[in-house]
Amino acid sequence: MSKAADSILKHLKVQRQKQRAILKMRLRCAQGGFEFEQLDTFYRAIRPYLCVAQFFGIMPLSNLLSRNPQDVKFKVISISLGVTGLFLLLGGIKTLVGANVIFNAGLNAKNMVGLVFLIVGIINWLNFVGFARSWSHIMLPWSSLDILMLFPPYKRCKRSLRSRVNLVVISVFCFAIGDHVLYYASGYRSYSMHIRQCQTNHSRITFEHYLEKEFSDIMFLLPCNMFSVCYGFWLNGSFTFLWNFTDIFIVITSIGLAQRFQQFADRVLALEGRHVPDALWYDIRRDHIRLCELTSLVDDSMSNIVFVSCANNVYVICSQALAIFTKLRTPINYVYFWYSLIFLLARTSLVFMIASKIHDASLLPLKSLYLVPNGHWTQEVQRFSNQLTSEFVGLSGYRLYYLTRKSLFGMLATLVTYELMLLQMDAKSPKDLRCT
Amino acid sequence: MSKAADSILKHLKVQRQKQRAILKMRLRCAQGGFEFEQLDTFYRAIRPYLCVAQFFGIMPLSNLLSRNPQDVKFKVISISLGVTGLFLLLGGIKTLVGANVIFNAGLNAKNMVGLVFLIVGIINWLNFVGFARSWSHIMLPWSSLDILMLFPPYKRCKRSLRSRVNLVVISVFCFAIGDHVLYYASGYRSYSMHIRQCQTNHSRITFEHYLEKEFSDIMFLLPCNMFSVCYGFWLNGSFTFLWNFTDIFIVITSIGLAQRFQQFADRVLALEGRHVPDALWYDIRRDHIRLCELTSLVDDSMSNIVFVSCANNVYVICSQALAIFTKLRTPINYVYFWYSLIFLLARTSLVFMIASKIHDASLLPLKSLYLVPNGHWTQEVQRFSNQLTSEFVGLSGYRLYYLTRKSLFGMLATLVTYELMLLQMDAKSPKDLRCT
Amino acid sequence: MSKAADSILKHLKVQRQKQRAILKMRLRCAQGGFEFEQLDTFYRAIRPYLCVAQFFGIMPLSNLLSRNPQDVKFKVISISLGVTGLFLLLGGIKTLVGANVIFNAGLNAKNMVGLVFLIVGIINWLNFVGFARSWSHIMLPWSSLDILMLFPPYKRCKRSLRSRVNLVVISVFCFAIGDHVLYYASGYRSYSMHIRQCQTNHSRITFEHYLEKEFSDIMFLLPCNMFSVCYGFWLNGSFTFLWNFTDIFIVITSIGLAQRFQQFADRVLALEGRHVPDALWYDIRRDHIRLCELTSLVDDSMSNIVFVSCANNVYVICSQALAIFTKLRTPINYVYFWYSLIFLLARTSLVFMIASKIHDASLLPLKSLYLVPNGHWTQEVQRFSNQLTSEFVGLSGYRLYYLTRKSLFGMLATLVTYELMLLQMDAKSPKDLRCT
Amino acid sequence: MSKAADSILKHLKVQRQKQRAILKMRLRCAQGGFEFEQLDTFYRAIRPYLCVAQFFGIMPLSNLLSRNPQDVKFKVISISLGVTGLFLLLGGIKTLVGANVIFNAGLNAKNMVGLVFLIVGIINWLNFVGFARSWSHIMLPWSSLDILMLFPPYKRCKRSLRSRVNLVVISVFCFAIGDHVLYYASGYRSYSMHIRQCQTNHSRITFEHYLEKEFSDIMFLLPCNMFSVCYGFWLNGSFTFLWNFTDIFIVITSIGLAQRFQQFADRVLALEGRHVPDALWYDIRRDHIRLCELTSLVDDSMSNIVFVSCANNVYVICSQALAIFTKLRTPINYVYFWYSLIFLLARTSLVFMIASKIHDASLLPLKSLYLVPNGHWTQEVQRFSNQLTSEFVGLSGYRLYYLTRKSLFGMLATLVTYELMLLQMDAKSPKDLRCT
Repeated sequence: MSKAADSILKHLKVQRQKQRAILKMRLRCAQGGFEFEQLDTFYRAIRPYLCVAQFFGIMPLSNLLSRNPQDVKFKVISISLGVTGLFLLLGGIKTLVGANVIFNAGLNAKNMVGLVFLIVGIINWLNFVGFARSWSHIMLPWSSLDILMLFPPYKRCKRSLRSRVNLVVISVFCFAIGDHVLYYASGYRSYSMHIRQCQTNHSRITFEHYLEKEFSDIMFLLPCNMFSVCYGFWLNGSFTFLWNFTDIFIVITSIGLAQRFQQFADRVLALEGRHVPDALWYDIRRDHIRLCELTSLVDDSMSNIVFVSCANNVYVICSQALAIFTKLRTPINYVYFWYSLIFLLARTSLVFMIASKIHDASLLPLKSLYLVPNGHWTQEVQRFSNQLTSEFVGLSGYRLYYLTRKSLFGMLATLVTYELMLLQMDAKSPKDLRCT
Repeated sequence: MSKAADSILKHLKVQRQKQRAILKMRLRCAQGGFEFEQLDTFYRAIRPYLCVAQFFGIMPLSNLLSRNPQDVKFKVISISLGVTGLFLLLGGIKTLVGANVIFNAGLNAKNMVGLVFLIVGIINWLNFVGFARSWSHIMLPWSSLDILMLFPPYKRCKRSLRSRVNLVVISVFCFAIGDHVLYYASGYRSYSMHIRQCQTNHSRITFEHYLEKEFSDIMFLLPCNMFSVCYGFWLNGSFTFLWNFTDIFIVITSIGLAQRFQQFADRVLALEGRHVPDALWYDIRRDHIRLCELTSLVDDSMSNIVFVSCANNVYVICSQALAIFTKLRTPINYVYFWYSLIFLLARTSLVFMIASKIHDASLLPLKSLYLVPNGHWTQEVQRFSNQLTSEFVGLSGYRLYYLTRKSLFGMLATLVTYELMLLQMDAKSPKDLRCT
Repeated sequence: MSKAADSILKHLKVQRQKQRAILKMRLRCAQGGFEFEQLDTFYRAIRPYLCVAQFFGIMPLSNLLSRNPQDVKFKVISISLGVTGLFLLLGGIKTLVGANVIFNAGLNAKNMVGLVFLIVGIINWLNFVGFARSWSHIMLPWSSLDILMLFPPYKRCKRSLRSRVNLVVISVFCFAIGDHVLYYASGYRSYSMHIRQCQTNHSRITFEHYLEKEFSDIMFLLPCNMFSVCYGFWLNGSFTFLWNFTDIFIVITSIGLAQRFQQFADRVLALEGRHVPDALWYDIRRDHIRLCELTSLVDDSMSNIVFVSCANNVYVICSQALAIFTKLRTPINYVYFWYSLIFLLARTSLVFMIASKIHDASLLPLKSLYLVPNGHWTQEVQRFSNQLTSEFVGLSGYRLYYLTRKSLFGMLATLVTYELMLLQMDAKSPKDLRCT
Repeated sequence: MSKAADSILKHLKVQRQKQRAILKMRLRCAQGGFEFEQLDTFYRAIRPYLCVAQFFGIMPLSNLLSRNPQDVKFKVISISLGVTGLFLLLGGIKTLVGANVIFNAGLNAKNMVGLVFLIVGIINWLNFVGFARSWSHIMLPWSSLDILMLFPPYKRCKRSLRSRVNLVVISVFCFAIGDHVLYYASGYRSYSMHIRQCQTNHSRITFEHYLEKEFSDIMFLLPCNMFSVCYGFWLNGSFTFLWNFTDIFIVITSIGLAQRFQQFADRVLALEGRHVPDALWYDIRRDHIRLCELTSLVDDSMSNIVFVSCANNVYVICSQALAIFTKLRTPINYVYFWYSLIFLLARTSLVFMIASKIHDASLLPLKSLYLVPNGHWTQEVQRFSNQLTSEFVGLSGYRLYYLTRKSLFGMLATLVTYELMLLQMDAKSPKDLRCT
């Protein structure tokens, strides 16, 4: 496959050179009315979030402050990669300490969850470094395609890509912050209840003592003071941010691709009822191939991110589902448990639903083709119609599965079956809230 | 996708205007022989059941007494919506009381069933309000298509749509009433056996005391008298009616759509062996697109109803399946248990089998096309043939799954696998009939 | 769908009339060389087995001794139907007695197996009565198609249909008889071991006492003597015969259909490299449609038999699989257990593998079409090629699933998963061989 | 199907004769520059590994030292088959001894693993004998196709087939040797810990005593001395070699086929933008048919090997997965357990991933066809395009399942679901490390 990918990349290189020429020309033309920075490109939509991600060492790219996508590159010697290295180091230490504790105590289903969370975090950081390396190979053709599709004959969308992306991202992050705050609140409440029931020394029920237990893996190496507590909060927060960012990143990419397919479908729809010469159909078909090639390029680079993200989400949902019939101690535990389970399910569904729109949008022109009158139906239209149906267009996890509604349903059905089994089994086992 | 839906809706709007013109013309022509009210439209078939549903606050539409589908609209200020609001209020109170009791006792697999039943009821009422809002957008194109297909070149079906619908609905409702009566009979019998075995005070074995326990969530708020018992019966009955109506509604809609596809296939079949000009094939193809667009419109509006209905049915079947190997107290318990399990399985299968007929009927013209002789095979026929096979036509649950025989089989296979697991596990646990 | 089926049947009726004319003509021509009875038709291949089946009241047809398929009809007043009625009565009594015993003892996973075996038997008898009713509708077009394909341009197969069918049927029946004998041998051995371990009165260890226990449901109604023991053997044997016959019947039908598709593919292969006029392609295409229509007709009539057979086989395999890790008493028990499990698995696989050949054979002409040279590739060939790929041809269980290799794999995968679960669970439960 | 296979074989025979003629001609032409032995054929790539396999009695072919594929044949009377017979005999004795021990102790999930390993080994030896019998039927068309594709118009690949195969095989074997060594190390460590904990006689903690226990099935028949220990190592090693070789063999075959499809795709890609006459398209199409026929021939002969290999791998992975939450005694046990589990998962995934490349590569020309300009799009191209999409090309297990990424995902999903169940169940059962 590597050879095939090579030839596709070569092919794209030639195209890119052509497109760059067009790009420059267009830019010159556009000097009067538009600035390049004001065009509603995908790069413009994702840039702010990439900047934020730099603070957490995710996707180490340099020159992100520049508004020109051609300036942004992956550099081995750069501040961004240094930050990433720092996170990998500190996260790695945390993971090793955690792993050590768990293997001493004996690995089991319950304590594995925390360890998997840390390992997945480390893998995600590495995956994003990998993606950053192929960043310029992806973003240049994408940007030129964006510019191509922001001028006639393509129509702009009513709502800009940027506003769509912002809407989704900000709402997800608000819920994620709520989730993170509830995590500490619920943890503290559980801790205090636990002390009250099982120990006589009630003086330990303070938030400080709780944090000392919560960040025990850090206190293992550092003295317990204000700084190490802040460090604990910050590292925990980074892992949580990364986890959310992974899903968010897939969502943003999907919105970006789906919007272009949507515009493409709109252009074909606008031709309805008109006489369309073969040359135009050929142009349209070329644009479609270009869009599909871009999607395939993005899919190749993102496959590992998509795979890890979905696998992890399914695992965490299953782990949570184990506890559905456990009687919890306090209302705040209930609130946190259900909030985080529903938030996770919703986020996972969101990833699948939005990613599935790429494929749905890629099939939309088919309906317009049905209405082409008989006299105008030529071989070129026939080939376009075949082309539309012959291939799957969308994101996938190493092409082992595709992000479609059908996959989501399969996943949900498996979860439900699993939950039904647990339901049956847990009904028989006694609930234990003993002091351990 | 919203944009695409918009453009389809616009498109349909233009078509609808044309169709309304045709409708008026046809109506004028038809004054001699037929009255509009006597045409075998889908609206005429479903109207009586919608009128009945008004009494339970389902699908709040105003002017349902009018025989003209154009008069029926969703109005915010109307008696129907008031009734719905009343049901939502009373049902909501019942649900909250029930939830409170269960969360205090600890949620488990057994007591969850009742709570889920109530919550699903509330969601269904809201879903039907949503459907009522899009009623006029669906019913106008449907009615005009109905009128179009009730005149030549389309042939009428031998059995009218109305009689088909009536047959299915009335038989299902008879079984549903039997189920509801058996529910109380079985409940009373269990209650009396329970008292006899576990308490000394046998004076409590009266139907009144049983009802007091059965409607304990109502007696929690109201004094126990004739009125509150009637109220309990009525509210319970409403939830049960709603549950059955949801499935029935999907069945009626499916029959309505399948019949039109069937008529369409008959028309194509009638052309067999004749020379058919391209213009006629184009007309036929247009009618097919129109039918598919209607189905897709209905599917979009009904997806939530279909999804909730199937999910709930599967859940209830699984819960019931848990109890297959439980030794029950009395014959009436056995009768009720098997009757309700088989009724539920049959109703769910009916929904899938009848809904799958839409897709089956949409593929029927293909067989006729195979027999078109070589000289008459033109590009237009080729396109028609491609169009028939290229898309799925039918109802779905958010396009996560489609109502087909294959989905039904998948569901049944999962149920059987689940049952096999239970069979294995229950064989080991002791059956308990102790007094709790 | 009933309307569509009607129109297909009408269509077939017209065709049949034409075919009958051809049939008569051919027969007259063939007087010199061949007798009608000596033609290698499907009817000739299946007739001996149908005659045997009459003795067990399966498929009640009259005039089966005639060699002309047109004479064989389903008659309400006939000896065959009388025999069937007798079996239904006696089998029904046995089933009711068994059900009574089980419901008194409490239904569980273990004792359910025997009851299900009896109920499935009764259902199978009824299904075959249903199939017998549609016998003449199926066998007449089939026979005429058989005759059509036994003369040029179709080539005969090297091995006759009859010899193929005989080979499969006789080998399966030999294994089935072995299974039945081992059943009694293993049962008697278990019984004697049981008595020896749990009772002091060892005089009861005789074959007579074993039979008394084995046929306890019959001894419940009749006195225990030679006659009632024979009756017990005979009724048990009939149920077992019916069970095997159901699978055998599906296999025979599949062989019959697959052979015709194979001949059809051979004919298309023979045209390779030659110039074929469009008229001939049209004839070939008509023959293919005729074959597909026949398959679809057979599938419609056999769906219930296929469904019950597969469901029952899967159920029995799963029940047997429960006992894999049980420690059995004696070697003969081991032999019987593994023999019957492997026999059952092999028989079920045979049904799927042979039935899947229909579809495989229906796709064979496609390879020949690829090699049609460019100059001879016309629209007619294109349509033939599309027709071959557009539809599924084969047997199914109510079209819920199709008898294909893929379905078999799905079934096996589910069985393996199930077995893996049991493996895990049984490892923990103690094996009990206590006296019950 | 046998008839169809016959006709395909006949067809291939005719082709082979033609190809042999071409082969000879080419060889004569090539005398100047290339020796036949230096051509990068599949036979040259696999020959060294087949020679090694001879020492373990796998794939008994004679004349393997010859560099001409036409000399290599399966002979009944040959040294290779004698070696195979020896292995079957010794392996059979080992298996019977093992089976005897297990059936006496009672078959259970744990001790079954070893027995299944031995039985699968025996089956694999027999399968390879079967494959060796059809060796010359496969290798002759393959070699001629290889030679055809090593000369223009086909381009050579940058990396030779031989180096690709060597890379994969050598790295897998290195890991396999590591696995085998760890097996003994971990076994010895467990043994010594066991003795130390449960017995007082610590003098038995020597490697000799461990081997005596490890090879107890051999010591059962032979006296315990140096020779029998070596024999034990050798027989164990052979079974392990066979197990790894089976997977390796599938991988090598897949690489060989995928490379040819890749070259084919490269040739089609090279035509992009040029005017291609219909005659050339026809030639290309013929080559594609030839490649597909070869793949189908290989698939038919390898189905049993593929089926047994996958089934066994899945079974062993599941068995290993059982022990994930068992607390092991020593670090070396942990290392062995995780190393062998990950090695097995990686090897199984490798088989699927590399085999799936055949299908992926077979679809590559489609992309080039999309770019054929309108004027050059003829019926021949259309047929080629249809041909590419109409069939599945690749290896399968009896066509019950295909070696694709999708199947791999299905397998992984099932494993994960299974693991989740175990996770839940094992959490409740006590870990036992008692002396047994």
